[in-house]
Amino acid sequence: MKINVKQCADMLKEQDNILVLCHAHPDGDTLGSGFALCSALLRLGKKARILCADEIPSKHFEIFEKPETVDFEEEFVVSVDVATPNLLGDICEKYEKRIDLCIDHHNSNSQYAKYLLLDGNAAAACETVLEVIKALGVSIDKAIADYLFTGITTDTGCFKYASTTEKTFRAAAELVECGADNGKINRVMFETKTKAYAAMERLAIDSMQFFCQDRVCVISVTQEMYEKTGATEQDTEAIPPLTRQVEGVEIGLTIKEKSNGECKCSIRTYESVDAAKLAALFGGGGHKQAAACRFECSVEEAKKQLIARCEELLK
Amino acid sequence: MKINVKQCADMLKEQDNILVLCHAHPDGDTLGSGFALCSALLRLGKKARILCADEIPSKHFEIFEKPETVDFEEEFVVSVDVATPNLLGDICEKYEKRIDLCIDHHNSNSQYAKYLLLDGNAAAACETVLEVIKALGVSIDKAIADYLFTGITTDTGCFKYASTTEKTFRAAAELVECGADNGKINRVMFETKTKAYAAMERLAIDSMQFFCQDRVCVISVTQEMYEKTGATEQDTEAIPPLTRQVEGVEIGLTIKEKSNGECKCSIRTYESVDAAKLAALFGGGGHKQAAACRFECSVEEAKKQLIARCEELLK
Repeated sequence: MKINVKQCADMLKEQDNILVLCHAHPDGDTLGSGFALCSALLRLGKKARILCADEIPSKHFEIFEKPETVDFEEEFVVSVDVATPNLLGDICEKYEKRIDLCIDHHNSNSQYAKYLLLDGNAAAACETVLEVIKALGVSIDKAIADYLFTGITTDTGCFKYASTTEKTFRAAAELVECGADNGKINRVMFETKTKAYAAMERLAIDSMQFFCQDRVCVISVTQEMYEKTGATEQDTEAIPPLTRQVEGVEIGLTIKEKSNGECKCSIRTYESVDAAKLAALFGGGGHKQAAACRFECSVEEAKKQLIARCEELLK
Repeated sequence: MKINVKQCADMLKEQDNILVLCHAHPDGDTLGSGFALCSALLRLGKKARILCADEIPSKHFEIFEKPETVDFEEEFVVSVDVATPNLLGDICEKYEKRIDLCIDHHNSNSQYAKYLLLDGNAAAACETVLEVIKALGVSIDKAIADYLFTGITTDTGCFKYASTTEKTFRAAAELVECGADNGKINRVMFETKTKAYAAMERLAIDSMQFFCQDRVCVISVTQEMYEKTGATEQDTEAIPPLTRQVEGVEIGLTIKEKSNGECKCSIRTYESVDAAKLAALFGGGGHKQAAACRFECSVEEAKKQLIARCEELLK
């Protein structure tokens, strides 16, 4: 059932022993939403903790205060920035039928939770979590401001994507006013490249291929490239935006080979193409300009299948 | 004489036949400020036009409406985003003694104009021009919003730099509300790379050298690299931020060889080093985290001199 911000806050006020679930391969938005919500619930005297199937990338702890470890039997389960239960990763099976509340901004949300607070116009789930926290009557302290700013800036590519609205900028202003260290957060999230990543980026750019009259750009990331550079899969999250930066490119595809020989494709587009629709053709999903899908085949085979679909889409 | 926003607006209301000067090698902030101010003055029924010593990079006209051509004998001269007269380039000699008003955000402003509206805390001159236009009683239409948003986003590296304040975000929110096409502007200014630039960027990254225990990163851009890639000097404006992106780098230097064998260095730093101070040692200037200076010698010689000063600064 869809609910609004006030109903969501009223519901949370009634609950205790709250478990907040982030999606697997966690990014700034799911973590920022989760940490901020937990922090607000703790401030209300409730017990709350976050759970994520995968390890939290260490760079987040340059910004995020480590949350208190709180032990309790969960009574109420909330997911944040999780469009479908399978995105929870290894904890999906345990929780997918038990999610009481979901706070999200993906229009593709599969409405798996008992209650859903969805704002498909929000550039980040953190935008909506900010409203919920204010409706809870919790003042935004520096820690909460840092969490939420991190989510907003990472999901908008540092306010670069067209998904950034007037409301996004106002939320950012408010969070900076409440102490968010925007300069540091953006430096950690966007500016600092490890030497391993810098080496990987160079190889990735060297791998660029163009198709469909240069309207499609493909970057291939192979296991050999990870070995050569020492970069990890997490490191390569900054690669997909590179694909659509070259003039004339409408679809950017980044195909990453996994250790089992299968692969994953990140899709980036401009307004002319719906990335989520292209991903859906292969069982994936996401946003209009950023989506992903998986393949149980080699990079070369996945590339062939993707290009064939791109040719149709660009006709 | 320093004046405030209201005094500045009152003064402009009194004047007519206004020439607005932008700095040479024009960027989004000087052009956004100039175009927006002219547009507002025209809306008040005054005659106004902008003048810049150098050609306006064509990408700006994907965003900017071409201003009406207005012919008149100038009676009042305003400079925007011009810290010192020599930054006017080839029109410096003609105008340097005749500048009535300067609107700027560089703390290093040499106070060359009769009247100076300076906000050293503004992330862009466009932030201050927005206030002036509002004080003039001109409503912000889509064209003015696009000009001003362009200046703000380019001078803050798309809201990434620590110079971005709460006020910057509020200005951005207001401009988007007034119709600024933030998605398109950021795509044109930050995302789209010509194939020539993409090739130049690759060579620039290949040229990276590290000094002072990897705390200094140097990129060298030679005339040979321009020839090989077809990139222009304007194209290379996006290179300097690359120097400080590698982990541990505190000073990033981009040394560009000019066609006469002399060279120019763009300096990028983090909080630990004052870029303007380093540039000043070589007769240059700028902001705390972004500055520039010129050398009448080869790239190699300039590099030697710069590294020697960096070693002292990082001690």
